[in-house]
Amino acid sequence: MNLAELNISDILEGIFTNNVAIVSKAITIIESTKPEHRIIANQIITGCISRKHDTLRIGITGVPGAGKSTFIEQFGNMLTEFGKKVAVLTVDPSSSKTKGSILGDKTRMQELVKNSNAYIRPSASGASLGGVTRKTRESIVILEAAGFEIILIETIGVGQSEIAVHGMVDFFLLLKLAGAGDELQGIKRGIIEMADSIVITKADGNNVQRAATAQTEFTRALHMFPLKENGWSPQVLTCSALEKKGLDEIWQMIYKYSQTMKQTGYLSKNRQKQNENWLMQHLEQEILLEFYQNPKIKKMLPLLKKEVIAGSTSPFLAAEKLLKALKTS
Amino acid sequence: MNLAELNISDILEGIFTNNVAIVSKAITIIESTKPEHRIIANQIITGCISRKHDTLRIGITGVPGAGKSTFIEQFGNMLTEFGKKVAVLTVDPSSSKTKGSILGDKTRMQELVKNSNAYIRPSASGASLGGVTRKTRESIVILEAAGFEIILIETIGVGQSEIAVHGMVDFFLLLKLAGAGDELQGIKRGIIEMADSIVITKADGNNVQRAATAQTEFTRALHMFPLKENGWSPQVLTCSALEKKGLDEIWQMIYKYSQTMKQTGYLSKNRQKQNENWLMQHLEQEILLEFYQNPKIKKMLPLLKKEVIAGSTSPFLAAEKLLKALKTS
Repeated sequence: MNLAELNISDILEGIFTNNVAIVSKAITIIESTKPEHRIIANQIITGCISRKHDTLRIGITGVPGAGKSTFIEQFGNMLTEFGKKVAVLTVDPSSSKTKGSILGDKTRMQELVKNSNAYIRPSASGASLGGVTRKTRESIVILEAAGFEIILIETIGVGQSEIAVHGMVDFFLLLKLAGAGDELQGIKRGIIEMADSIVITKADGNNVQRAATAQTEFTRALHMFPLKENGWSPQVLTCSALEKKGLDEIWQMIYKYSQTMKQTGYLSKNRQKQNENWLMQHLEQEILLEFYQNPKIKKMLPLLKKEVIAGSTSPFLAAEKLLKALKTS
Repeated sequence: MNLAELNISDILEGIFTNNVAIVSKAITIIESTKPEHRIIANQIITGCISRKHDTLRIGITGVPGAGKSTFIEQFGNMLTEFGKKVAVLTVDPSSSKTKGSILGDKTRMQELVKNSNAYIRPSASGASLGGVTRKTRESIVILEAAGFEIILIETIGVGQSEIAVHGMVDFFLLLKLAGAGDELQGIKRGIIEMADSIVITKADGNNVQRAATAQTEFTRALHMFPLKENGWSPQVLTCSALEKKGLDEIWQMIYKYSQTMKQTGYLSKNRQKQNENWLMQHLEQEILLEFYQNPKIKKMLPLLKKEVIAGSTSPFLAAEKLLKALKTS
């Protein structure tokens, strides 16, 4: 089949039968910014969105060096050994600058790339977090329709993308290297409180004792925080991706979480809430984008911003001027 | 002088000479939603905003029962004994429903009410957090122009208002009762990470030991978190407002913080950033408000939301439909 000549029913058929070449093609279409691709993209999403089956979306974050790639490779392979079909997505708006992520992801996870029950999709490129977020969310819809049961979504732990990913997953995992205690510097404040679990990585060799100490300390620290809204108390585990230790426990924890949250109805309620949030966020992004692109606003805003920063005008008065200018434009 | 007959120069003169009757009148004007009041309000703010002197804005939060009123009363009185002029504001959008806050604040802080160097302004009423936030921010401008040096802004610790208040202060204090460890349940996740200091209250009588234990535990817990962007490491202190113990240490800590942050330039940079944020937040609130009030959107949004929640349409497709409807309206 020539991929270039596919029509919408071919594409949907290919997705539903887990044809990975067509899945990749479909994701490429939704990533495209060309208007004619956007029309097909919308048809693909509409075709995929009602294909419901049991899936689990797991967000994985940690600063560079925390061992994310190795963890995802080993964790993903283990899940396929359990008979699961696993897809890996990366959210990293910054990577579009270096254009290095495609090669990067493939070389980072060589074993998983070869695994026929796993699918790795490198980071969507795009200038804005909003764009990357949309592409990731739509990729999830396609991958789930293609029968992938566990979607691992990797993010780099140093910016706004964590909040975006937290808003599209069922479980959010923070990877942390055992060590001197200050590696968390790179992690944005607030991310720790979003985590459903902290996993201390590279708990092998000389690091075993340090990892155990970190586990105790973080368990104690998390204990000081209020329970999550769903009643879940975040857990701290250790693992060695190198020695393949601790991975099973992590999966058991996530599995137990998902079973409990299915029973309470939290999982489906949370997904409904997430869908509603996507709608509202996307709407508001588009509305504000148009506002900021208005020529009058583009001209006036930088000047008024300067006045506000200098303290010579009130933020509210400056806003009123801009809104007035908009009405008369 | 008949307050009802004041013109703008009388009002500004009254504010600049710390005439509290006129300060109160000015705040009432900025709290008014009447268009004719809004014009005077803008003149007042414009007149006040460039009156700069050294002030410190301290946010104070904690769940009901954490001892906020008693703390603010004793802490405020102590600051006036140090020769400071102190103003207290409360941000509690919910209080507008009960209309009980005016009586509430006055009876809650009887000593401070009588103190001639202190000024207490009950919670601004208003349906929306945005409205209350604007009023509070404008009240700060007036109070600072009136010569108040320390502005204490109280918030109730259970909702969005903490984030708003965190965005308008120099220092953010979380009050916590020593005890069984689960009183933080009432505190929204994320607030702990915003705190520049946690103060364990009611450290007196039988509670002294419990407070010391809580202090140790929280110090250890906060230690696990990354430093703040400004290099500040949040501190945990204890106090007894009843026995007037520990209040001086809290002030020393805040004073040291403010001196350090003045030297590094963080304090003024942070206020500039806050001003810029107010401008952008207010602008975006107004733009979105207008969008949501559009009759077509009002009619279509609830239906599309239902479809999105039910999973029968994609959030992005629903958003596109709404935006299209807007263009053709």
